[in-house]
Amino acid sequence: MALIASHVIFALQETRRFKVISIDNHHNSHPKSLQRVAQIARDALPPNASEQDKESTVIDAWTCDLRNREQVRNVFEHYGKDGIWGVIHIAAYKAVGESSEIPLTYYENNVGATISLLQIMSEYDCTRIVYSSSATVYGTPPVIPIPETTRMKADSPYGKTKVMDETIIEDVCSAEPTRWSALSLRYFNPAGAHPSGLIGEDPLGRPMNLLPLLSHMAIGLVKDSKLQVFGQDYPTPDGTCVRDYLHVVDLAKGHLLALDALGPDSHVFDTCPTNARFKAYNLGKGHGMSVLEMVDAMRKATGFDYKYEVIGRRHGDVPELVADPTLARKELGFNAPQDLVTMCRDLWNWQTKNPKGYGGPDEVLPAGATPTLHQL
Amino acid sequence: MALIASHVIFALQETRRFKVISIDNHHNSHPKSLQRVAQIARDALPPNASEQDKESTVIDAWTCDLRNREQVRNVFEHYGKDGIWGVIHIAAYKAVGESSEIPLTYYENNVGATISLLQIMSEYDCTRIVYSSSATVYGTPPVIPIPETTRMKADSPYGKTKVMDETIIEDVCSAEPTRWSALSLRYFNPAGAHPSGLIGEDPLGRPMNLLPLLSHMAIGLVKDSKLQVFGQDYPTPDGTCVRDYLHVVDLAKGHLLALDALGPDSHVFDTCPTNARFKAYNLGKGHGMSVLEMVDAMRKATGFDYKYEVIGRRHGDVPELVADPTLARKELGFNAPQDLVTMCRDLWNWQTKNPKGYGGPDEVLPAGATPTLHQL
Ligand SMILES: NC(=O)c1ccc[n+]([C@@H]2O[C@H](COP(=O)([O-])OP(=O)(O)OC[C@H]3O[C@@H](n4cnc5c(N)ncnc54)[C@H](O)[C@@H]3O)[C@@H](O)[C@H]2O)c1
Ligand SMILES: NC(=O)c1ccc[n+]([C@@H]2O[C@H](COP(=O)([O-])OP(=O)(O)OC[C@H]3O[C@@H](n4cnc5c(N)ncnc54)[C@H](O)[C@@H]3O)[C@@H](O)[C@H]2O)c1
Repeated sequence: MALIASHVIFALQETRRFKVISIDNHHNSHPKSLQRVAQIARDALPPNASEQDKESTVIDAWTCDLRNREQVRNVFEHYGKDGIWGVIHIAAYKAVGESSEIPLTYYENNVGATISLLQIMSEYDCTRIVYSSSATVYGTPPVIPIPETTRMKADSPYGKTKVMDETIIEDVCSAEPTRWSALSLRYFNPAGAHPSGLIGEDPLGRPMNLLPLLSHMAIGLVKDSKLQVFGQDYPTPDGTCVRDYLHVVDLAKGHLLALDALGPDSHVFDTCPTNARFKAYNLGKGHGMSVLEMVDAMRKATGFDYKYEVIGRRHGDVPELVADPTLARKELGFNAPQDLVTMCRDLWNWQTKNPKGYGGPDEVLPAGATPTLHQL
Repeated sequence: MALIASHVIFALQETRRFKVISIDNHHNSHPKSLQRVAQIARDALPPNASEQDKESTVIDAWTCDLRNREQVRNVFEHYGKDGIWGVIHIAAYKAVGESSEIPLTYYENNVGATISLLQIMSEYDCTRIVYSSSATVYGTPPVIPIPETTRMKADSPYGKTKVMDETIIEDVCSAEPTRWSALSLRYFNPAGAHPSGLIGEDPLGRPMNLLPLLSHMAIGLVKDSKLQVFGQDYPTPDGTCVRDYLHVVDLAKGHLLALDALGPDSHVFDTCPTNARFKAYNLGKGHGMSVLEMVDAMRKATGFDYKYEVIGRRHGDVPELVADPTLARKELGFNAPQDLVTMCRDLWNWQTKNPKGYGGPDEVLPAGATPTLHQL
């Protein structure tokens, strides 16, 4: 839970260049994950660390719901006009299947809250944003590997919320080109965990993604005797779906590059077709892995003897989603060097060190409460 | 102001089949317009009108901001669960040019408020909606006349808010096909006014649309010596832009047909490709009129000697927007029989009877106030 955000915060803290302010309503995150991040950052401090270095490991963690305009405004008010350099907007609901069942909940949380956040940012002269988008914006892509110029055509309400947010953010950048700048990062499939084993994914209930599911099977949290593989008749080498997995630590580092690209020395917007300073980048390895290859890799990492059965295709699954990573490499200097063996090893390391995830039930945020600041 | 809504309400009242509840924050409408509508409806009552007939001419007019969830919820609460049969959702900001300057304001008011409205409707088991969409969803259409199957590709933030709302509403219908049904009406260019001269368009400031501008020139509210025509080098018969004008009274009647199509005896959803009961219809005449033809028609209606000068094309203008009206004719029984002469005559009748519109400044709604009910 808070999988990506916790790794991004760690990446920021590791540089000791940033003061991190976190906003989360703990819908899908355990407050402990941020405590752990702050801990790893403090453990990594050199013995001669300055006071400023130490200060940079303190996270201002606000319990605050992005849908609640007043709560968010209170957080920005705390730092004052121009008090926040930029925002990395990661919070969203993300379950593709669920989004088709309760689309309004997704549109409210992912689109409504983004509109409101952007308005408050504007009020407080905070006009730099890095946005968490997704490969799902491409729907069924006409060309593999997928370049960023591919038309956006998401299939699920979840995917459409990402397309809408990108559209809205781009329009904001067009309206005030000398004020706003934004990068949208289209994540492919983040996998693995921080090698310390202190932070990682802790899904609410049964994992919906392949790797956490395999990991939960190996640790015994999911008792299925067999993995259900959705379709082996796709036009891919072994007939199962192919995805572009990248290590979540590599993905997280991409956000540092994105922040730099919003900084004064950046040239990423020089090639924008209009004067709007908006750009979208794929974050992927550019390598596809099939379901069966992933099962095999997790077998090696965990020693667990996975059985599987092939059942029918799952509605909405796309045969192949592989990034063309050229643009991010060229313009941001982004690379995702860590390989599949490392992803599986780190995931398993996290899982064995935290067999029940962060443990304990999540804090519940009382509705309409004022945001609360915890300094971690 | 409240141009379309006031004519729609009149069309509803004329049938004496509905109890009308209006929600408006009076951002762009004069409270007087609804008083006038109720007046016309009462004047039209036959001498032997029943108590129920009389009751049907009373409008419950709520001063309420759609962006304010609590306010809107209070209105629905007043009528209780299942207390409102359906919603015609007309309220929006609509200035194409302005939407590029302040996109967030448009996304908040047109998209954020729609998401919130749909959520509240769902809470109160009010699951029928007629949505005011626009020909702008087509952007620059590949084929003229434009069938509803044309891909949506709006150019302006305003147009994109309409595309997003249609998408969201369709997803809601897909998620709960036995519960929700919705029609989206894509208006082409509404023109004219009710023949009584009691209701009509009263633009805030300088009119942005051609016909109201010509009308304001003729009455002397706009003092320009010449009309500026944006481009005479388009691939159209006389080189000026072509639009599909229809009488606002005809357009308003389309909403009655739409309500019936959401009713139990309707078959419009039988041909839906999925089981989602969602359908979009063009409301237009299927006839294009050029800028110069409109000037000529208004010259005849007003007797005013318009002068014009051709200046450069305006950014974002599309050469030709003409509806293919076949689907609405076939499935809804929609027609827009009134001709251009009538549109211009009725517009001028309204203008001469109300040379200053509804007059006086608008009521200002205090922010965060509870909604107030006026029975008109
Ligand atoms: N994990 C993936 O495979 C993947 C792939 C592509 C894109 N993404 C995107 O990356 C982002 C993060 O994904 P993740 O896997 O870390 O998800 P996650 O659910 O682990 O993290 C999302 C975080 O946002 C918080 N949140 C949600 N709604 C909120 C609200 N209204 N107010 C405050 N906080 C709120 C949750 O509590 C959680 O901490 C999301 O935007 C997701 O759509 C994820
Ligand atoms: N007039 C056109 O040429 C045209 C063409 C195509 C589509 N449309 C659409 O038709 C609808 C009506 O257009 P119109 O010309 O009558 O516009 P209008 O501005 O005259 O009417 C819109 C009404 O909505 C109200 N409103 C706006 N925001 C509100 C909010 N947050 N809460 C409560 N009330 C709010 C305004 O006060 C006004 O009464 C709009 O959705 C518009 O986009 C209009």
